[in-house]
Amino acid sequence: MANRDNLLKLAKLIRYYILVSTSQAGSGHPTSALSATDLLTALMFGGTFRFDADNPGHPNNDRLLFSKGHASPLLYSSWLAAGKVTEEEIMTYRKFGSRLEGHPTTVFPYVEAATGSLGQGLAIGVGMAVNAKYIDNLPYRSYILLGDSEMAEGSQWESIQLAAYYKLDNLIGILDVNRLGQRGETMYGHDIAAYEKRISAFGWETIIITDGHDMDEILAAYEKIPQVKDRPVMVIAKTVKGKGVSEVEDKNGWHGKALDKDLLQKALGELGEVDKSVRGSIARPDDLQPADRGPGPAIAEMSYEKGKSVATRNAYGNGLKRIFPQFPDMVVLDAEVSNSTRAEYFKDAHPERFFEMFIAEQNMAGTALGLFARGKLPFVSSFAAFLTRAFDQIRMSQYSYANIKFCGSHAGVSIGQDGPSQMGLEDIAMFRSITGSVVLYPSDAVSTEKLVEAAAKHKGMVYIRTTRSGTPVIYGTDEQFAIGGSKVVRESDGDSVTVAAAGITLHEAVAAHEELKKEGLMIRVIDLYSIKPVDAETLRKAGSVTQHLVVVEDHHPEGGIAEAVRSALGDYDIPIHSLAVTKIPKSGKPEELLDFEEISRKAIIKKIKELL
Amino acid sequence: MANRDNLLKLAKLIRYYILVSTSQAGSGHPTSALSATDLLTALMFGGTFRFDADNPGHPNNDRLLFSKGHASPLLYSSWLAAGKVTEEEIMTYRKFGSRLEGHPTTVFPYVEAATGSLGQGLAIGVGMAVNAKYIDNLPYRSYILLGDSEMAEGSQWESIQLAAYYKLDNLIGILDVNRLGQRGETMYGHDIAAYEKRISAFGWETIIITDGHDMDEILAAYEKIPQVKDRPVMVIAKTVKGKGVSEVEDKNGWHGKALDKDLLQKALGELGEVDKSVRGSIARPDDLQPADRGPGPAIAEMSYEKGKSVATRNAYGNGLKRIFPQFPDMVVLDAEVSNSTRAEYFKDAHPERFFEMFIAEQNMAGTALGLFARGKLPFVSSFAAFLTRAFDQIRMSQYSYANIKFCGSHAGVSIGQDGPSQMGLEDIAMFRSITGSVVLYPSDAVSTEKLVEAAAKHKGMVYIRTTRSGTPVIYGTDEQFAIGGSKVVRESDGDSVTVAAAGITLHEAVAAHEELKKEGLMIRVIDLYSIKPVDAETLRKAGSVTQHLVVVEDHHPEGGIAEAVRSALGDYDIPIHSLAVTKIPKSGKPEELLDFEEISRKAIIKKIKELL
Repeated sequence: MANRDNLLKLAKLIRYYILVSTSQAGSGHPTSALSATDLLTALMFGGTFRFDADNPGHPNNDRLLFSKGHASPLLYSSWLAAGKVTEEEIMTYRKFGSRLEGHPTTVFPYVEAATGSLGQGLAIGVGMAVNAKYIDNLPYRSYILLGDSEMAEGSQWESIQLAAYYKLDNLIGILDVNRLGQRGETMYGHDIAAYEKRISAFGWETIIITDGHDMDEILAAYEKIPQVKDRPVMVIAKTVKGKGVSEVEDKNGWHGKALDKDLLQKALGELGEVDKSVRGSIARPDDLQPADRGPGPAIAEMSYEKGKSVATRNAYGNGLKRIFPQFPDMVVLDAEVSNSTRAEYFKDAHPERFFEMFIAEQNMAGTALGLFARGKLPFVSSFAAFLTRAFDQIRMSQYSYANIKFCGSHAGVSIGQDGPSQMGLEDIAMFRSITGSVVLYPSDAVSTEKLVEAAAKHKGMVYIRTTRSGTPVIYGTDEQFAIGGSKVVRESDGDSVTVAAAGITLHEAVAAHEELKKEGLMIRVIDLYSIKPVDAETLRKAGSVTQHLVVVEDHHPEGGIAEAVRSALGDYDIPIHSLAVTKIPKSGKPEELLDFEEISRKAIIKKIKELL
Repeated sequence: MANRDNLLKLAKLIRYYILVSTSQAGSGHPTSALSATDLLTALMFGGTFRFDADNPGHPNNDRLLFSKGHASPLLYSSWLAAGKVTEEEIMTYRKFGSRLEGHPTTVFPYVEAATGSLGQGLAIGVGMAVNAKYIDNLPYRSYILLGDSEMAEGSQWESIQLAAYYKLDNLIGILDVNRLGQRGETMYGHDIAAYEKRISAFGWETIIITDGHDMDEILAAYEKIPQVKDRPVMVIAKTVKGKGVSEVEDKNGWHGKALDKDLLQKALGELGEVDKSVRGSIARPDDLQPADRGPGPAIAEMSYEKGKSVATRNAYGNGLKRIFPQFPDMVVLDAEVSNSTRAEYFKDAHPERFFEMFIAEQNMAGTALGLFARGKLPFVSSFAAFLTRAFDQIRMSQYSYANIKFCGSHAGVSIGQDGPSQMGLEDIAMFRSITGSVVLYPSDAVSTEKLVEAAAKHKGMVYIRTTRSGTPVIYGTDEQFAIGGSKVVRESDGDSVTVAAAGITLHEAVAAHEELKKEGLMIRVIDLYSIKPVDAETLRKAGSVTQHLVVVEDHHPEGGIAEAVRSALGDYDIPIHSLAVTKIPKSGKPEELLDFEEISRKAIIKKIKELL
């Protein structure tokens, strides 16, 4: 355990590197790092934080996350003080190819998850803490460094509610109240009582630090943490932005600015002599192993009768339940609609691995990321429409190379009477836009279950889109479905047009095929269940035979299936036509809406007759 | 003022129509409507609510919004009780073409804004209340009916913070605590003290109703509302879901389910005799006019020197400031980054029309919608990356036919050192996916200002994408820019390839042109500043001359500019190639990142040489 003098030396060392690394980079957020320096030094090297720095993946390591990601110079300087970053490396801060990026990413091994979009850290903490308390049964704690201005983000209050609900006494927020946001004072300024009142109202234990630069007060506050039971803890500290550099201390206009050469020299002079040789030691974690999960029951076979009507959302629920023994790291989250998404099928079978996230989609996505960070395989579901609520969290997950599966149910206008607010019509565009993502949109129960399994096996972000109403089972249970694949479901030598569809519109295309066949007109129908990546080869083959390709989708045209197809085919030989949702939908029967939007069998037939 | 007996009669009438209209529709949320029936009846017909039902647009009308949009049968039945919906019409509930959609939309004239995605109503209320208190200076109040389960949404707590910050004593939430969410109990169940504690901690006045079905208690509570000064008011009422139908009262499993024929008969029997002739009268509003804005100063000319480096974000700020006299309904909102987005240029010039929204993008988007609902023209800015936070609110705005302008700054990898968390790389995909939206991406200061003006003139959702770093002014100040237009900036008879670009990559394309020209290779360069709608004609014309089209964009390929081009061109003659951001970016210099992602001048030259 480091003594007080040593901590002061370390804080000075850390301040030194915050200043020189940002000035060297010519950008960064030194003042936001300086305000939290003493809080973090005391945490890491004062005996509270327990971590095996030689083994960042140790299951008993406490977790440390900078929700205020812009304080990254503090993070890197602290790991320098722990002996894990060299002086040479810290001078590469913000340089192309450096592990030390402007905002923390998981390229640096001491980062749990990429941050930098504010207000996301607590949710990730909820995931890591849920894992410790309810899944791995390990005593590690998750510490989240929070900025005051990011407390305006609603996502934080979602996490505050959920953390209290789940009694996460292993989740500790450290709130750095430095008064100043980017462009001026925060809503509550230096009124730490305002934070105390609001956060404690939600059932959190609050511990106040009136001077966030007084090492004794900080250490005394941290000592109270382990005594708190059954409630999360928020340490609320009054700090000074830019602490230690009197020219910028508590001054507006210094957010996100590095000191220039002259000011840096002045600041270093003020800092005084720095012992560059001092290094801090971190307390050792326990050496426990995660709770043994034991062997699960054997995987049941799936059983669907061809031609029977089964909603793909039902198959999603069935699939989750069925594959769990094969994927014991699975955790299922749902935003208070599990009876609609059918995640409840899993919940009923494996309640210990289901966590109700209530109507708080942002926290849900962040919690999934936290669970992923601790080695779990999260499946996350809500209505497709409402997953848009978590776009920023989903976006950020790509920078943690996350392995999370999202399922959006009630996709498209085919949900009918509930009306447009409930219709996912932008979800494919959203999930396609994520680097390396996979987007799947099965049309029947068998393909859904197979794709749930394929999603579980795939490493990376996967989105599965499901449909509210029942659709006929069209595949046998031994049919294979691969990410990037497709199925030609209707084909003849005389096909004149290819219709590519997925989900609900595949059945419309098949119905159009039957109608046109009666008139002697043959069309090819492709089930494009994998939208990203899309099966360009099969489409090309169809394109070499038929004269037109028509893509039909229950989604807006922008960013949807037709655009995926167009991008994949580049210099395709035949014209590509799109039937998609282009008018503001209304309430009505599913069939009425498919007709209204011109994506129904009727519309497909009409389009084909126009083309030929 | 209606007497107590009359209110009871009206509540019975309303319950009757809630039940019969949902049963007739075969779907809907009768139980969620019944819990709030007495609260709403007392509000509308008990003298508290003031509204000229013959003139829904009356500037002094109190505003009423169902944040719990699924309680729509209550809304429609209440307006039936006010004489504004017939029995015949209410039986069209949820039918195709009816004004009475499953969740409220503005097709029904007594709806302020479309709702149905939970947790968005308070933010819209903030916008309407800000308008009353700070812009129009009118005494109307905004009443927001809230569900208990939607209080899990962080967006609500953003609004709770902002409403208190702006001392909105004209904003009244009515929280219907009926204990049950969709799939079971909410986080706090019937514990109304839990809500009271949390909401009052944020500085709201809370008024408790222990029995939300006791007309006297409700009326007494409402009488307290006008006495509250300088703080928003939350009326928190304990209610029973399905109140009045003992078979379903307070029972799980009855969310979103209409009663079948038998159960309906039973329920109507329990309801007893209904006086179908009774109608309620609503108190009259004042007859004041919005504050006169007076004539603004004359619009200054813009002044930029060709060749000089000016960031388009700066031009956005300049443009807002300059055009204000021409658009006196303008209101500017920003999420605590106005010094970066340059919305502060407007704020400094017209502080009375600038509202700091802090780091709470969801509330900001909802507030904009509320301001639009009250006739204002909101301009909303943040980093492009962080607007993804408000995707669900943006999505919902399309169903209110909203006229809101969004500006996302710091777009693309070209922001450099701050790293991927701050880079908007999915924003074009997001905004393109909105029905009828316009997406603009200017490359220089002149076009930016002209497009800010075009955006203000256009009725509908517009997104303007701006760049962090300076780019040379390439247009004269008399150049014209139209939504749907483009500019051919480099052109010759011998052009072999067309490069279409926008924003930062336009300058890379121009630089590539200069390089290639030295080698005798001529390329056409098009400034595709209007991405939606895109100028297909100019592209077609270029396609008839050159052999290839290369689209270069600082955005992910999915849903981006190349896909917009491909969709617009359909059966284009020449191959379309895409250069876009396909790798996870890092921190680095802008040029390094443009090179790394292969969207720089170097990459363009390489691509063109490959093609020819």
